[in-house]
Amino acid sequence: MDNINLMEIDTVMLDDEGNAVVIIDQTKLPGKVELLSLTTARQIWDAIYLLQVRGAPAIGVAAAMGIYILAKNMPRESFAIFYREFTKQKEYLDSARPTAVNLSWALNRMDACVLSHKEESVDEIVEALHREAVAIRDEDVKVCKKIGEYGVTLLKPGEGVLTHCNAGKLATVQFGTATAPIYVAEEKGYHLRVFCDETRPLLQGARLTAFELQESGVDTTLICDNMSAMVMKNGWVDAVFVGCDRVAANGDAANKIGTSVVAAVAKQYGVPMYICAPTSTIDMDTATGDDIVIEERKSDEVAEMWYKERMAPKDVKIFNPAFDVTDHSLIAGIITEYGIATAPYEQSLKEIFEKKNGGK
Amino acid sequence: MDNINLMEIDTVMLDDEGNAVVIIDQTKLPGKVELLSLTTARQIWDAIYLLQVRGAPAIGVAAAMGIYILAKNMPRESFAIFYREFTKQKEYLDSARPTAVNLSWALNRMDACVLSHKEESVDEIVEALHREAVAIRDEDVKVCKKIGEYGVTLLKPGEGVLTHCNAGKLATVQFGTATAPIYVAEEKGYHLRVFCDETRPLLQGARLTAFELQESGVDTTLICDNMSAMVMKNGWVDAVFVGCDRVAANGDAANKIGTSVVAAVAKQYGVPMYICAPTSTIDMDTATGDDIVIEERKSDEVAEMWYKERMAPKDVKIFNPAFDVTDHSLIAGIITEYGIATAPYEQSLKEIFEKKNGGK
Repeated sequence: MDNINLMEIDTVMLDDEGNAVVIIDQTKLPGKVELLSLTTARQIWDAIYLLQVRGAPAIGVAAAMGIYILAKNMPRESFAIFYREFTKQKEYLDSARPTAVNLSWALNRMDACVLSHKEESVDEIVEALHREAVAIRDEDVKVCKKIGEYGVTLLKPGEGVLTHCNAGKLATVQFGTATAPIYVAEEKGYHLRVFCDETRPLLQGARLTAFELQESGVDTTLICDNMSAMVMKNGWVDAVFVGCDRVAANGDAANKIGTSVVAAVAKQYGVPMYICAPTSTIDMDTATGDDIVIEERKSDEVAEMWYKERMAPKDVKIFNPAFDVTDHSLIAGIITEYGIATAPYEQSLKEIFEKKNGGK
Repeated sequence: MDNINLMEIDTVMLDDEGNAVVIIDQTKLPGKVELLSLTTARQIWDAIYLLQVRGAPAIGVAAAMGIYILAKNMPRESFAIFYREFTKQKEYLDSARPTAVNLSWALNRMDACVLSHKEESVDEIVEALHREAVAIRDEDVKVCKKIGEYGVTLLKPGEGVLTHCNAGKLATVQFGTATAPIYVAEEKGYHLRVFCDETRPLLQGARLTAFELQESGVDTTLICDNMSAMVMKNGWVDAVFVGCDRVAANGDAANKIGTSVVAAVAKQYGVPMYICAPTSTIDMDTATGDDIVIEERKSDEVAEMWYKERMAPKDVKIFNPAFDVTDHSLIAGIITEYGIATAPYEQSLKEIFEKKNGGK
């Protein structure tokens, strides 16, 4: 499909008849914007497994919408028969990426929805599943929008922003987390200048963030990860916004490898660094970043993505951690959908949750 | 050629008969160790232009040896005829990389050698050129060795070292500059653990430094540039050694892009950072790093080295500076062949030059 305007569509959608989950195929970016229409369990599983849809929130929404469209065609002779099939398909989808927390979370929420309507007809259950999938989607949009609105208060027109990896629209339904303040600022006519770290080894910054920002008309400049000090020294960066995978109770934040390099550089040049974190990623049961286990990935990602041939010596040792932990002392603020937490984080994060749990 | 032991040969050599300049073809690394035998002006020019030999000191030695072997076959009817041809070939070789200071420097030194022997026979002049080329080579080896000997005093057995880019043996004749303390430490049985930044965009760390260290038996681990904070936080790095392109009188040091990122990270984690700098790279006429102009290179280097296709959006802006300047406040010491300068650098660098000029 040609002429798809990335900014006018969601990363994950239900088609008009509610018979397919439609996603932007992220494995084709930035070369092509292609939509994929998923109608079978196998297609949905593959899309998640093959990273055609990626980013924890986007995966959760795709799975919720997916189990809904599958439920529409499940046998309806009795609740027991329906639920047996529902459970089977749910477990199948859940196996696509075993470590993606949002995948299980969204599917378990859909499961709870079925059980809470078990006394009703299967037609009514399926209707409830539709509402639940749409609710999960709407909540994601709302959370990101709120992060954007809080985040934009930290920016002024014409300022420069640096971001790392992709915590963008393509990882959520709309807006993204780290990119939300940027998109909200653009709506306000701020004309920011945004620098995207390419984000080795997998280049999410070059392939995805630079792409979605450029598509949305943001003034975007791609840099290698080792150029952040230069752009900050030049005075081109007024704030750093990044996403996160998990925030500990003391404010330590695990995010894509390299985030803590940006943090040290930002400190050196006096640039404030903000973590954009839906409350779903803040884990008050994790005391500090030291309690977060960091996944180490295969060395080929570092040595073998190159065009001609392997770019590292045969058999050389390669250290390839997927994430790192940024110490809370380097973080100027944690932007959530309930406001911006600042140091001391033990206290401010508690208050964020009190606000969340204390009603809207 | 198979089974070439990198550590047993020089990066640039004269062959046994003195009829060819023999180099390790660096464009084939790390896949293959191939020697190239250069006998014509065109071959020498190409080798420099195509980066088959690279690194300022190595280029200087290759040019000096090159103009010597060409001089052997120049017409000898008279000094005037000989010198006309010498000047022509010198200017031709000098055009291979117009910005490489060592290239002009070495060729001008060979020219001065000719002129200082102009009253002698051409046979004698050619003999003098041979001695001068060998002297340039020997001085490079000696300078690097001295940097290694001073640098090793900053290390203890079993420690970890991080380096960025290639200021290694492959950029000089032997030892390198930033790698010299590592090689000297290995000779002493220190068994260091060395981390090599891959060094985007051109990957000199992955392709060259990781290669030469591994070949020499050093415990070598390759990382992406954005992993330096993680390895330092883990306590794996006790010192950073990097080379430099130019040091200003106040100690600010221009080196490969990313060096100042490593410096900021090292400061954050309390790791001392050392610049390995032959006095030929220290420019007392440059007051501070602000006076150093930074070359910006083409954007394709960032966007198009990848195996399948372009990895950045079409037409996205890319900032691709080749070097950056590390502020002297982040530098624990500048290691020269005359000793280690420490802050305040205005004073200590002056003393280094007094030592250099005051005799051996």
